[in-house]
Amino acid sequence: MLARFRYGGKVLSGTVDVKGGRVIFDGVEMGLKEIELLAPSEPSKIVCIGLNYREHARELNKKVPDEPIIFLKPPTAVISPGESIIYPRQSKRMDYEGELGVVISRRCKEVSAKDADQYILGYTCFNDITARDLQHKDGQWTRAKSFDTFAPFGPWIAEAGSMDLGNASILTRVNGEVKQKSNTSDLIFNVPKLIEFISGVMTLLPGDVIATGTPPGVGPVQKGDVIEVEIAGIGVLRNHVAP
Amino acid sequence: MLARFRYGGKVLSGTVDVKGGRVIFDGVEMGLKEIELLAPSEPSKIVCIGLNYREHARELNKKVPDEPIIFLKPPTAVISPGESIIYPRQSKRMDYEGELGVVISRRCKEVSAKDADQYILGYTCFNDITARDLQHKDGQWTRAKSFDTFAPFGPWIAEAGSMDLGNASILTRVNGEVKQKSNTSDLIFNVPKLIEFISGVMTLLPGDVIATGTPPGVGPVQKGDVIEVEIAGIGVLRNHVAP
Repeated sequence: MLARFRYGGKVLSGTVDVKGGRVIFDGVEMGLKEIELLAPSEPSKIVCIGLNYREHARELNKKVPDEPIIFLKPPTAVISPGESIIYPRQSKRMDYEGELGVVISRRCKEVSAKDADQYILGYTCFNDITARDLQHKDGQWTRAKSFDTFAPFGPWIAEAGSMDLGNASILTRVNGEVKQKSNTSDLIFNVPKLIEFISGVMTLLPGDVIATGTPPGVGPVQKGDVIEVEIAGIGVLRNHVAP
Repeated sequence: MLARFRYGGKVLSGTVDVKGGRVIFDGVEMGLKEIELLAPSEPSKIVCIGLNYREHARELNKKVPDEPIIFLKPPTAVISPGESIIYPRQSKRMDYEGELGVVISRRCKEVSAKDADQYILGYTCFNDITARDLQHKDGQWTRAKSFDTFAPFGPWIAEAGSMDLGNASILTRVNGEVKQKSNTSDLIFNVPKLIEFISGVMTLLPGDVIATGTPPGVGPVQKGDVIEVEIAGIGVLRNHVAP
C-alpha cells in the first residue's frame, strides 16, 4: 500500500505494509493508532464520473450513456480518513456515494486505453458526498459536489497491479448497515477507457484523482452518522458526519 | 498593475507600471516586447458563473436566476496572454466568452458581501472558451469548459480599488470586430455577492480566479482567429486560435 500519514509531528509518505493493526514503513513498525492517516495524495484536480454502473442506470430508468459525463470537485473539498464531513447549512439532503478512486502517477495527455496502465499509481476508496437537493435545484452539479469536506478518500492507495479491477466488490455502510453493494465488473466505462476519455480533454497530473462513479443504493446521511466505503483489495475509508 | 512575466529566463511577479509599450518593474524599464507576459496568477481553482448578465438572460429568454450557477475549470486549462487556444478534435463549435475575472488575495471562507473587498487582489480579463456542442450534448458543462488552453486570462491584474467595478465597459473582439459590448453595471450578482456565495461553499485560496459570467453576444471562432477581451481600467487579453 502507498500511504501518507502524520507520525511524531512529521508528514511521511511511501510504501507501507499493513498487518493486523500494525504498519511497517521504512523498516519501522508502528501501531495504526499511533499514526494519523492523511488523504493518500494531494490532487491538483478531482475528476468525477456521473452515471457509470449499469444497474444504477437501470434503477434510475436512464439510458446507458455513450460517453462518460464528467464533473470536477475542487481540491479544497478533500479530507482525510477519519476526518469529519460537515453538513452544509444550505442543504437539507446530503448523500453518501461510495466509489472506486484512481490515482494518477505521471503527467498524462491524450493517452489511449491500451496505454493507460502506465499512468496509474493505484486505487483508493472515494466518497463523493453530494448535497442532493442543491444538485436538483441547480441542474449543474458543481455546487452540490464542491463543499469543503465533500471529497474524503483513502485510507491508502493499493498499487496498480495488486488488485483485480475487473472483479472487486464495493460496499458502502452507514452506521454499520450495508447501503451499496456492487462490483467493479458492473462499470459501464472501465478505468482505461476513463483515462483515455479524460486525458483527451485535460492533462492529468501526478496525484490527480478520478472518482469512477457510484453503484446503486445512494441515500441520505444525518449528523453523527458514520460512513464506510470498503473495496476488496484496498480497505475501508471511514468518516463521520459532524454532529 | 500586478503582472507575472518571463524576462531573461526568469519568472518575475509583482507591481509594474505600464506606459505606452514600456513596463517599469522594480525600477527597471523594459519594452513590453522584451518580456513574455504569463497568466497573472496560478489558481488552485477557477470558479465560473453561468448566466450573470441581465441582458444575456433576456436574450436567451431565461429567468434571472435567484442564486448564481457555478462550475469549475481545471488549472490545466490556463494559458497566458498571447498563447494559442487549441481547437479540440471532439468539437465542431468552439465559442469565445469574454468575462471579468476576480483574483483572490487570501484564504477566504464564509465571507459576507460587505467584507468581500478584503479578499480581492484585483481584476483581470478572462476568456471562458467553451465547446458549445459538447456543452449541449453533455448537459453538464464541465467537459465543454475544461479542455487544455480553455482558460486564457490576463494580461495583468488591476489592483482592487483602482477601478470602478460598478461601471466598467467590457468588449470582446474577433479579428478586430466587436462581438460583445456590455458593462459590469449589468451584472446580476456583483463581485461581493459572488464571493459571499462561493466562499459559503468552498474555501478560496490566494490566486484563485472567479470568472463572473459573460454578457450577450457569444459566438463561434475558427482556427486562426484572434480573440481580444478588453475591460476598461484593465487592458486587453489577446489570444489566437491555433491554425
